[in-house]
Amino acid sequence: MSPTPVRKLALLIATACLSVNVVQAASLAPDIAQKQAQASYREYLDLLSIPNDSIVPEDIRRNVTWLEEAFRKRGFATQSLDNDGKPMLFAEYPGKQAGRKTVLFYMHLDGQPVIPAQWAQKSPWTPVLKQKAANGNWEEIDSAKLFAGAVDPEWRVFGRSSSDDKGPIMMMLAAIDALKAAGGAPAVNVKVILDSEEEKGSPSIAKVMQAHRDLLACDAIVIHDGPMHATNRPTLVFGNRGAAKAKLVVFGPKSPLHSGHYGNYAPNPAQRLATLLASMKDDTGRVTIPGYYSKVRLGDAERKIMAAVPDDEVALKRRLGIAQTDKVGANYQEAMQYPSLNVRGMGAAAIGDKVANIVPDKAEAELDLRTTPDSDAAYLGKLVEQHIVKQGYHLVQGTPTDEDRARYDKLASFTYQSEGGNAAGSPIDSPVAKWAYQAITGTFGTNPEPVRIRMMGGTVPTAEIVEVLKVPFVIVPLVNADNNQHAANENLRLGNYTNGIRTLHGLLTQPF
Amino acid sequence: MSPTPVRKLALLIATACLSVNVVQAASLAPDIAQKQAQASYREYLDLLSIPNDSIVPEDIRRNVTWLEEAFRKRGFATQSLDNDGKPMLFAEYPGKQAGRKTVLFYMHLDGQPVIPAQWAQKSPWTPVLKQKAANGNWEEIDSAKLFAGAVDPEWRVFGRSSSDDKGPIMMMLAAIDALKAAGGAPAVNVKVILDSEEEKGSPSIAKVMQAHRDLLACDAIVIHDGPMHATNRPTLVFGNRGAAKAKLVVFGPKSPLHSGHYGNYAPNPAQRLATLLASMKDDTGRVTIPGYYSKVRLGDAERKIMAAVPDDEVALKRRLGIAQTDKVGANYQEAMQYPSLNVRGMGAAAIGDKVANIVPDKAEAELDLRTTPDSDAAYLGKLVEQHIVKQGYHLVQGTPTDEDRARYDKLASFTYQSEGGNAAGSPIDSPVAKWAYQAITGTFGTNPEPVRIRMMGGTVPTAEIVEVLKVPFVIVPLVNADNNQHAANENLRLGNYTNGIRTLHGLLTQPF
Repeated sequence: MSPTPVRKLALLIATACLSVNVVQAASLAPDIAQKQAQASYREYLDLLSIPNDSIVPEDIRRNVTWLEEAFRKRGFATQSLDNDGKPMLFAEYPGKQAGRKTVLFYMHLDGQPVIPAQWAQKSPWTPVLKQKAANGNWEEIDSAKLFAGAVDPEWRVFGRSSSDDKGPIMMMLAAIDALKAAGGAPAVNVKVILDSEEEKGSPSIAKVMQAHRDLLACDAIVIHDGPMHATNRPTLVFGNRGAAKAKLVVFGPKSPLHSGHYGNYAPNPAQRLATLLASMKDDTGRVTIPGYYSKVRLGDAERKIMAAVPDDEVALKRRLGIAQTDKVGANYQEAMQYPSLNVRGMGAAAIGDKVANIVPDKAEAELDLRTTPDSDAAYLGKLVEQHIVKQGYHLVQGTPTDEDRARYDKLASFTYQSEGGNAAGSPIDSPVAKWAYQAITGTFGTNPEPVRIRMMGGTVPTAEIVEVLKVPFVIVPLVNADNNQHAANENLRLGNYTNGIRTLHGLLTQPF
Repeated sequence: MSPTPVRKLALLIATACLSVNVVQAASLAPDIAQKQAQASYREYLDLLSIPNDSIVPEDIRRNVTWLEEAFRKRGFATQSLDNDGKPMLFAEYPGKQAGRKTVLFYMHLDGQPVIPAQWAQKSPWTPVLKQKAANGNWEEIDSAKLFAGAVDPEWRVFGRSSSDDKGPIMMMLAAIDALKAAGGAPAVNVKVILDSEEEKGSPSIAKVMQAHRDLLACDAIVIHDGPMHATNRPTLVFGNRGAAKAKLVVFGPKSPLHSGHYGNYAPNPAQRLATLLASMKDDTGRVTIPGYYSKVRLGDAERKIMAAVPDDEVALKRRLGIAQTDKVGANYQEAMQYPSLNVRGMGAAAIGDKVANIVPDKAEAELDLRTTPDSDAAYLGKLVEQHIVKQGYHLVQGTPTDEDRARYDKLASFTYQSEGGNAAGSPIDSPVAKWAYQAITGTFGTNPEPVRIRMMGGTVPTAEIVEVLKVPFVIVPLVNADNNQHAANENLRLGNYTNGIRTLHGLLTQPF
C-alpha cells in the first residue's frame, strides 16, 4: 500500500475526527455498573468452574451448554456450530433492523492448559477471591464478599480463564442485563461468536466461519481478547503481527573433527552460521536484508498515534535489564510496526560440561519472524532465503549428500514454516474504529484519551478470525495487563470487570 | 624469532645437509628385525595384559614392576621415580661414555581409559591377533601364529596401548636385544624415561623431571609417541601446537522475553554473539584480529619442508566431506603452523523440540585456541579479549548486576583458561634432528624421503616433557596412523612393529 496523498489526507482527517465525539453512547453510571456486576458474579464463578482446555471436547461441550443457556435466557437466539466435537457458540440478539449496522463480537470460551501444582489455590477450576496483603502477597478472602456490601475494585478473582477470556463473555452478558434493566435496546444489530480453540491458535475458526458465512454476516468485528495497556486506560488495538518460523542449519565437515588436527583447516559451521546471521542485521539490531522493512509505510498520522501511547520506556528497559534497545523504531510502538527477525535458539555441538575439542559438524539457528499485514510470511521468508543464497550458500533439503559436499563450499538448509498465524491490521480510521472510539470516550471521557495501539507485537489469531468476512475490525481488550494470562494464578481485577460492563454497554448503545 | 639473514642461511645449509648422509647407522636387516620381533611378541602380549589407566595407581605400579624387570634383564640400571603412587620408570643403558652425546628416549606406560563393551574382543586387556577378512572386517586368528612360521606384516595386535604407547616400549627392548645379539653397543649414551600420566596430559612429568634433573641430564630428547604420517613412511616431527580454552557469554535481557512483544526491541544476545564471532574471522576462515598470526614467520626453507609432506589433500577433503578448506595456509601443513580460533560449541536457549518464541537471555560460545611456540596462550587470549572490548563490550565476571545492565549496552563475560598444554617446537636443523634423519635414512634409504612435519596440529605434552631440560627434541612416531588411538579397538600393525625395531636400532647405532 503506497502512502498516496489521498490516503495521507484521509488519515489526517480521521485523526482530526477522532478528537470530536459526534454522537455519544448512553454512558452507564459506575454505581449501576457495579450493581450489575455484583448481580452477575454468581454466574461468573459458575462459568469459571467448568474446565475448558479444548483438548477435552466433553469439557468444551459443557461450556457451550452452559453459555447457550446464559445467552438464551437474556433473549438471544443461539446456535451451536459444529467443530469436530468442540462446538463454537453463535448468539444473536433479537430485534435486528435492516437499516442498522451489524457488529459481530468475538470472544473465546476455551482456556490454556493448567498445571494445578503451580497455582496458589485449591484448583484453577475453583475460582477464589483475593486481596493484596500489606506484604504484597495475594491472600484469599471469603468470596461471599462479592455478593454483599461494598466491593473493592482492587480485589481480584483468581481462576483459569477469569481474564482470558470468560471475563469478557460475562461482562457482555452483564451489559445486556444493564441495558434490559433500563428498558433499553442496542443501537446496533448484535451477533456474538465464541471460539472453542483460540488457545490452540484458532485452527478451526476460519473453517467454521466459512461454513456459516450468512449467519455471521456483519459490517464489523469487535474482538474482546488480550490485556489492556499497562496503564489500564481504555485501549483500542487495530492489528497485530503474525508469526513465521524458520530453521537454518549450516553444515560443516561430515563428522565432528579433532580441533587440533583440523582447526584452521576444516571450515567451522558455527563460525559460518555466526557470519551468516551477522550479515542479516547491523549493530543496532536493524535487518539489513534489502526490502525487509520497505513495505511498512508510516506517516505522520500513524507516528502521532504511536507517540501518544503512554509507554514508560525507562521503566520498561529497567524491568527488561537492558541499557539500550534495538533501533528499529523510534519507540516501542514504532518498533512493533515492523517485521522482526529473531534468533530464538542457537546450537552447535555442546556447551558446558560436555564440551569437546572439536570442529562441529553443523550449527543450527531457530528463527522466528514476526510479520505485518504488508510484509507477510511468504514475502519475508523468500527475502531471507535469497539472502542466504546470495552469501554463497547452496541450500539442500535434509542433509547434504557426498556429492553436495564435494561440489559446494557452503552448504545449508533453510526450512521455513509460515504456520504461526498471519498478521492483521485494520485502519485506525475505519468506521468501526471511530464507532468504538466514540463509545469509549462517551463512557469514560477523553481525559485521558484512550490508548490506541496500531499494531501489537505479539501474535493473536485476528487474521484467522477476520479473513473470511473481510470487514474492518477493532480489538477492545478489557482485562488488566497483569492478569497472568496463560500462566498460573490467572486473575481478573474487579475494577476491570465493572469498567468492562461499562465499555460493552457503551458499544451496544453507540449508534454506528 | 625474526628470520634474520643468518638464520635463513643456516636453514638453507641444514636443508642441503639433510640430503647427504654423512655418517650411517648400522642398518638392521628386515629378516633379522622380523626374527627379533617374533622373539619379543610373548613379552609384548604380557605387557598389554596389564591394565594401565593411571586412575588406578596399583595398575601403574604393576606395569612399572614388569617393565623394570624387562629393562634390568637387558642390562639397564633402573630407578622407579616416585609420583604420588603412580611412579615413572627411569632406565639407563650401561657403558656411558663421557665423550658421547646422551639421548633421553621418552615413552609412556599408561593408557587411555577403556569402555570394554565398545571393543570387538573379550577385553581390551586381553590382546588378540587379527587379520583383515575379504569383507574388510578384522577377524581374530590364533595368536600362536605370532610365534611360528611366517608373520604377515598386515596382521595386527588389538589391545589397549598396543600402539599408544607400549608398542614403542617393546620395540625399544627388542632393538636392544638385536644389538646385543649381534655383539654391538649403542653409539650414544642411552637413557629412557617412561611417563605414567601421559594420557592425563602429563600433569606430573615436569615436577618429576625437575626432581631428577641430574639423573635425566641429556643432550637431546627423542619422543616415541603418536602415529606416523598416514602414508606410513618414516616420520620426524619437530613440534606441536598447544591449546587454550575460552568461554564467551553475551548477555541479553535479564530473563527470556516473548519474541512477539520484544522482538525488534530488546537486543538479541544470540544475534550479538554471532556478530561478535563474525568480527573475529573473515569469510575464508582467517582470523582478522590484528597480531593473531603475525608472530608466525615462515621462510622458504620451512615452506619447502611443508610442501614435501605427502598429504593427499584431495582424499582428505573427500574424507572430511568439505569442498574447500579455510585459507589460513597454502596447504594442510602450513595451516598447522598458525594459531587457531575455533568455536567448539555454541548455544542460546533451545533448539529442536524445546524451542520457544523468545528473545534468549544469553548466548554462549565455547572456544579453543591452538597456540604456537611464538604465539602462546597468554598472548592470544589477550588479543581476543581486547578485540571484544574494542567491539564495545563491557566485560563482567559471572553475571551482570542490575547496575551493569542499566549502564552498559553490550555486556559479556570472557573466561580464559590457558591450561590445555603449551606448544613446543624444535628447529628442523637441530643436531638431534639431523642425527635422527641420518639414522632413519641409513636404515630405510632416501627414496622416498622421510616425512618431516614441522608442527603437528594437535596438542601432545611435548612442552611439558622438554621444558625442564631445555634441550632440542625430535618426535619419532613408530605406529600406524589408523591404530584407533584413544578409542576402542586400538591396534598395532606388525609391519610397524618390525620397522619400529629397525628405526630404534638405527637411532641407537647412529653416531651423534
